[in-house]
Amino acid sequence: MKGLNMFELERNLRNWLEEDMPFGDITSDYIFDDTMTGTGELIAKEEGVICGTQIFAKIYELIDRAVEIEFSVNEGDRVSVGDVIGVVNGPMAGVLKGERLGLNLMQRLSGIATMSATFSDLVKDLPTVIVDTRKTTPGLRSLEKYAVRVGGCTNHRYSLSDAVMIKDNHISGAGGIAEAVTLVREHIPHTVKVEVEAETLTEVQSCIDAGADIIMLDNMDNDMTREAVGMIRKAGKGITIEASGNMTMDRIRGVAETGVDVISIGALTHSVKAMDISLKFAK
Amino acid sequence: MKGLNMFELERNLRNWLEEDMPFGDITSDYIFDDTMTGTGELIAKEEGVICGTQIFAKIYELIDRAVEIEFSVNEGDRVSVGDVIGVVNGPMAGVLKGERLGLNLMQRLSGIATMSATFSDLVKDLPTVIVDTRKTTPGLRSLEKYAVRVGGCTNHRYSLSDAVMIKDNHISGAGGIAEAVTLVREHIPHTVKVEVEAETLTEVQSCIDAGADIIMLDNMDNDMTREAVGMIRKAGKGITIEASGNMTMDRIRGVAETGVDVISIGALTHSVKAMDISLKFAK
Amino acid sequence: MKGLNMFELERNLRNWLEEDMPFGDITSDYIFDDTMTGTGELIAKEEGVICGTQIFAKIYELIDRAVEIEFSVNEGDRVSVGDVIGVVNGPMAGVLKGERLGLNLMQRLSGIATMSATFSDLVKDLPTVIVDTRKTTPGLRSLEKYAVRVGGCTNHRYSLSDAVMIKDNHISGAGGIAEAVTLVREHIPHTVKVEVEAETLTEVQSCIDAGADIIMLDNMDNDMTREAVGMIRKAGKGITIEASGNMTMDRIRGVAETGVDVISIGALTHSVKAMDISLKFAK
Amino acid sequence: MKGLNMFELERNLRNWLEEDMPFGDITSDYIFDDTMTGTGELIAKEEGVICGTQIFAKIYELIDRAVEIEFSVNEGDRVSVGDVIGVVNGPMAGVLKGERLGLNLMQRLSGIATMSATFSDLVKDLPTVIVDTRKTTPGLRSLEKYAVRVGGCTNHRYSLSDAVMIKDNHISGAGGIAEAVTLVREHIPHTVKVEVEAETLTEVQSCIDAGADIIMLDNMDNDMTREAVGMIRKAGKGITIEASGNMTMDRIRGVAETGVDVISIGALTHSVKAMDISLKFAK
Amino acid sequence: MKGLNMFELERNLRNWLEEDMPFGDITSDYIFDDTMTGTGELIAKEEGVICGTQIFAKIYELIDRAVEIEFSVNEGDRVSVGDVIGVVNGPMAGVLKGERLGLNLMQRLSGIATMSATFSDLVKDLPTVIVDTRKTTPGLRSLEKYAVRVGGCTNHRYSLSDAVMIKDNHISGAGGIAEAVTLVREHIPHTVKVEVEAETLTEVQSCIDAGADIIMLDNMDNDMTREAVGMIRKAGKGITIEASGNMTMDRIRGVAETGVDVISIGALTHSVKAMDISLKFAK
Amino acid sequence: MKGLNMFELERNLRNWLEEDMPFGDITSDYIFDDTMTGTGELIAKEEGVICGTQIFAKIYELIDRAVEIEFSVNEGDRVSVGDVIGVVNGPMAGVLKGERLGLNLMQRLSGIATMSATFSDLVKDLPTVIVDTRKTTPGLRSLEKYAVRVGGCTNHRYSLSDAVMIKDNHISGAGGIAEAVTLVREHIPHTVKVEVEAETLTEVQSCIDAGADIIMLDNMDNDMTREAVGMIRKAGKGITIEASGNMTMDRIRGVAETGVDVISIGALTHSVKAMDISLKFAK
Repeated sequence: MKGLNMFELERNLRNWLEEDMPFGDITSDYIFDDTMTGTGELIAKEEGVICGTQIFAKIYELIDRAVEIEFSVNEGDRVSVGDVIGVVNGPMAGVLKGERLGLNLMQRLSGIATMSATFSDLVKDLPTVIVDTRKTTPGLRSLEKYAVRVGGCTNHRYSLSDAVMIKDNHISGAGGIAEAVTLVREHIPHTVKVEVEAETLTEVQSCIDAGADIIMLDNMDNDMTREAVGMIRKAGKGITIEASGNMTMDRIRGVAETGVDVISIGALTHSVKAMDISLKFAK
Repeated sequence: MKGLNMFELERNLRNWLEEDMPFGDITSDYIFDDTMTGTGELIAKEEGVICGTQIFAKIYELIDRAVEIEFSVNEGDRVSVGDVIGVVNGPMAGVLKGERLGLNLMQRLSGIATMSATFSDLVKDLPTVIVDTRKTTPGLRSLEKYAVRVGGCTNHRYSLSDAVMIKDNHISGAGGIAEAVTLVREHIPHTVKVEVEAETLTEVQSCIDAGADIIMLDNMDNDMTREAVGMIRKAGKGITIEASGNMTMDRIRGVAETGVDVISIGALTHSVKAMDISLKFAK
Repeated sequence: MKGLNMFELERNLRNWLEEDMPFGDITSDYIFDDTMTGTGELIAKEEGVICGTQIFAKIYELIDRAVEIEFSVNEGDRVSVGDVIGVVNGPMAGVLKGERLGLNLMQRLSGIATMSATFSDLVKDLPTVIVDTRKTTPGLRSLEKYAVRVGGCTNHRYSLSDAVMIKDNHISGAGGIAEAVTLVREHIPHTVKVEVEAETLTEVQSCIDAGADIIMLDNMDNDMTREAVGMIRKAGKGITIEASGNMTMDRIRGVAETGVDVISIGALTHSVKAMDISLKFAK
Repeated sequence: MKGLNMFELERNLRNWLEEDMPFGDITSDYIFDDTMTGTGELIAKEEGVICGTQIFAKIYELIDRAVEIEFSVNEGDRVSVGDVIGVVNGPMAGVLKGERLGLNLMQRLSGIATMSATFSDLVKDLPTVIVDTRKTTPGLRSLEKYAVRVGGCTNHRYSLSDAVMIKDNHISGAGGIAEAVTLVREHIPHTVKVEVEAETLTEVQSCIDAGADIIMLDNMDNDMTREAVGMIRKAGKGITIEASGNMTMDRIRGVAETGVDVISIGALTHSVKAMDISLKFAK
Repeated sequence: MKGLNMFELERNLRNWLEEDMPFGDITSDYIFDDTMTGTGELIAKEEGVICGTQIFAKIYELIDRAVEIEFSVNEGDRVSVGDVIGVVNGPMAGVLKGERLGLNLMQRLSGIATMSATFSDLVKDLPTVIVDTRKTTPGLRSLEKYAVRVGGCTNHRYSLSDAVMIKDNHISGAGGIAEAVTLVREHIPHTVKVEVEAETLTEVQSCIDAGADIIMLDNMDNDMTREAVGMIRKAGKGITIEASGNMTMDRIRGVAETGVDVISIGALTHSVKAMDISLKFAK
Repeated sequence: MKGLNMFELERNLRNWLEEDMPFGDITSDYIFDDTMTGTGELIAKEEGVICGTQIFAKIYELIDRAVEIEFSVNEGDRVSVGDVIGVVNGPMAGVLKGERLGLNLMQRLSGIATMSATFSDLVKDLPTVIVDTRKTTPGLRSLEKYAVRVGGCTNHRYSLSDAVMIKDNHISGAGGIAEAVTLVREHIPHTVKVEVEAETLTEVQSCIDAGADIIMLDNMDNDMTREAVGMIRKAGKGITIEASGNMTMDRIRGVAETGVDVISIGALTHSVKAMDISLKFAK
């Protein structure tokens, strides 16, 4: 699980297991003893890209090391309806205690990975990259951004701390684009990029002049986008061009063809359709 | 905010704010000083039921008490496209630091409340109650179940600890429905109800005989459901009847008309379509 | 350890070990090196029911896995004065670091289990069940309720969140028993029972009419209790009857014989007489 | 609240409130709205020494600042049956949410304070001081030791970290009393005292020779204790003498009269009889 | 306090206060009552740049809001021996409980700010910027990087997560500089810069060709540095040039004059000489 | 690691690793896979006393158990420039993730141990002991005091809770030295020592009379110190004598020769010069 903080993940998994059983599993605890084992198959109920296999396994490592998980697909593999994703085997009480959290996470992350793969496939022959936003579920940003990567897209900034994004409020506050960029550059590390939002071509020009590292073309139509791309490329400063705002599936390819480097899409994470996966037990 | 643990909420909000600014907001911090204030309007970009107003306000209480929020709608009110939900006013750095978390939460909770209201409206003239499931986002169960209530539905159990739910694995493990119910009743508080899943009418009869408090009719069609309701009502034991399994909007009314007391729907929380709400600043 | 949240338990044990050695054990650390081992016997200094063996073992798992514990009794066994409960063997520094916490917990939990067994034995030929209350030690509710179960009683609700208990203040607030029950039922899950306190037979009747799941007869004498039981049974609604208030050992059997289902006793946990257990080392 | 870590206290109170309402108070939350207030009186149901008034008040500060508490007694005052200890007034939902934790703590701490006062009174005309031990409830050591002080006794060491206590295992491990004392003194701060247990007069002499700061006379009868005191005083090294082991109420005065400086009593905290205090609401 | 996570700061301050008084201040608690107040002056015992005034004030906000602090200097001001930095006034017990933590932090942060100011002054007429490294005290990275900024320098990356730094191990692992840069660029956000270490001019050329955003000249002498700067500027790709390795005070100006953009210096934080500041009380 | 709280240490190490990679190591994670291993040597770049070997090993235990560490020196050994301290071998991603924290800690602790050894060597033929103060880094007190012990000195009190230190403010507050000592003795455990600061010989006499366990001679010159020692020894009460205030290397021996028992030195921890240690990888 590249690019994850494993300590945060373990902390979260423990908290989430506690959320689901603050004083134990009062059904399974009183029905099963440790010798009663069972086997369940994780089955895809719809097509999609699987994400969260190692997280699923980690959950059982925390609950009961006697539970064994074997996955028959790799992280990021696309599966079809009915495919067996993996097999869970071990003491039934342990297996059932982890089931709900395991599925809740894997379904959500696979939903994000699947959505990301869909978007990314639409432009796979073009150099444009699809990225997510900060519209993630509170507490799950790391995992959701991980799922976006598993689905073949990449990430926008992680938080308000690791990249500068200058929006219209900042511009008003500073008294202009050039002023805002200068003000921020005085304080931030040289390792941090400065991105500026532009809504008009005049603003695009100001961004170029102000030395922005990334210019975000906000809610422009494709013609204006193309013109902006032309202006920025002509400036020859190696500026990255991002398009954003209402990026639906039908628009994406057209936008990519304008030549932008990056398209950012909130829908990758803000309205996740969980992928349907079930855990079926052998009778 | 009835039925919420306010201490957990505050803890979570602090963690989620840290998730979005592990080392501050490096754009706003360096552009605004404390004297620069601004005003933003929360505007509904689509129709829906608003949920999360007090949580939104609480976020700003934690960030900067100088930020003032006034809501023009009440929790649970339905709004139309373009309606102003509330006004945020105060130091711009503070306002912007809370914006993303505030919107992420309010959009998600309002999405759940709106979906819940849609389902609940479909059966509002019938005694049947719509409830959620444990298919909630890890770490957000309390908030999501709260949103379900705000939307006019009620909740199923909170966790594996506060109600018994005997499923087919438990039945196999115990050696039968009667055995499973008996085994569990020996250990649980007298304040806890025992729910048993039944897939056939024979199982329904066993549940009745075993003294289940709630019988969950799992994936039955409407005819079988009606028959099961008849059997259970005839037993006259005051058993609650729950229907579950693939409860889509078009099925719900038909199922409710079979006379079940409760319909449980995972989709209330597992695939949330965030309601589109934006924070627009006065220029 | 059925019905326990193992993640909470581990967290607590770590905190409690830190409470007892915020900067190490400055006696043992400087006297023993890792090669110096010893053996101690856990000995019952009075008769009682043993509770906490696995918790005792878990403490040493956290301190030093080289310390081995072997118990010669099972959880819930009754022991006599002088009985050896188990043997602890391993590096002396580790053994001594866990001794105080291990004994503090096992003595307290065994005290509760013993008291619970005493009460439960008094009515063991009757169908009445003895339960605890929320008068537990802050921070130890889960463990103390576990000890009650080990001692042969069962539990009342865990917290203010998992069952409704309507008392006189709620009744006044709502404007009557029926109003209170109705108000609450609108919001709570269908999996949650509603218990109502009654001090008079008139109130008992109101509880029956209001559809209470459980009626708690509060501080009634045996005659009134018997009469109340008659009224409730006659209503034939499957209502659970609980008696509460000043339930001393001499009263318990008489109360049980009135036919109540449940007797709740705060004294099971609120004034624990620790069972005397010592760890004696071989010289 | 002298000698308490206020940050730890607040952390604990929050956790304990969460323990009692992991997802809110589902009775009071749905019956009371914020405008419904009430008044309750804290009444002593038995004689005793009150401890925990400020902690009780702090609980309500965390739940709802609109709840007001006024105490009519001071911390450490002795009250009689029927005495009003204080008055709680405010929104009923808030008042009821804090009631159980408030009473659980105040009853327990007042129980300890009362027991401590009883012991301390028995020797109040003598210079001997009564102290507690580490036999405290896990997680409550600070509060229980505070209650001991409120009751007029003082404390033994807080933990394994703040004073050295050399017992027989340590002596065997080190190869003798002198060796043990020397070994420890090499590593500990000069601000830390070294206490050594002695079971015989020979051991007492070894302790004196080894330079112990405190000698604990373990389970000696009064005659041997008197002799030991004589030996130690004669040595003229300002050594503190502690008596320990099975110190019941009838023995205490006799032991004190032997001239020991300190008597340590596990029973001050290990088997707390909660003082009966109730919160009665005005009808 | 720009660029700080205020929630982390508060959490840390609480922990650090607990570290210094796990069970209260047993001297001040027993000597002072709440009515005994005092006034102390924070006095510079040596010349330096003050950092930590608001943190100092925050400590007292957490301990006792009755303690008032007034600073006579601003954050970042340079003071001389004997200058009064501020005045602390309030209940003596509260004042003394915060004294040690307050001074420990302010002395350390002022030490870093002073050192940073010294370095930054050496090149203040040149465009070169001095930055810190990740050689910070565990747990204090945010505060120490803040102090670096207060002293007039800026920061290098915050952590392993917010900027890429490719060193020789990575280059071997990937099979070359170009391969390493390509591999990383596939996964990281477009908002993240890629820095590569170069020890030779051949490596510098490879970094240029590979498209590094920043090239770190590792341990080069001034001649080689000057040559590398020439090569990189000539490439005209807007690459940032950083010099690193053994950057002592006497070398700094020479290195800056080679034309590098950034010089990184571990000594800004790894061996802090605390600035001598004392709190003197009025007699 | 004697005298350390291992649970606190593990908690801290996890937090510090999260501080350095809040969302993973975005360089190593994307370059190395698990099969790519490497070997690094820990090399002393300057002479000093090594401290932190087991802590270094513990870090890797938390990151990746596949990383193996073998130390060729023992904790507390003195090494010379170029000495190999140990070897780290394992998956490169894991090795690099722990490198910075491991070095930051070991360099700091070895710096303290080295400084402590230097001071302690200056008086090694004298009975005087060198101790630290509470001028430690917030959050690192336990580790820094451990390093002081490894370097051959011992510790002063750990915190405001485990020993009494009466300073001039306390004396004014109480109305005199005798009053302060009496007031405190009433409340503190008999296991706790009382130290009193004296600035004049008159105060020294008052301390003797008041029954101080330790007298701290504050900022006295050697003549006055010698006189004070004489007075205290003559009193024959076994009082420990501590000298404090501006104890530089050149003064230490002279002060020790006055006959004081203890010299306390803030510089052992407040201005740590990190020992230069590097991790060099085999090419």
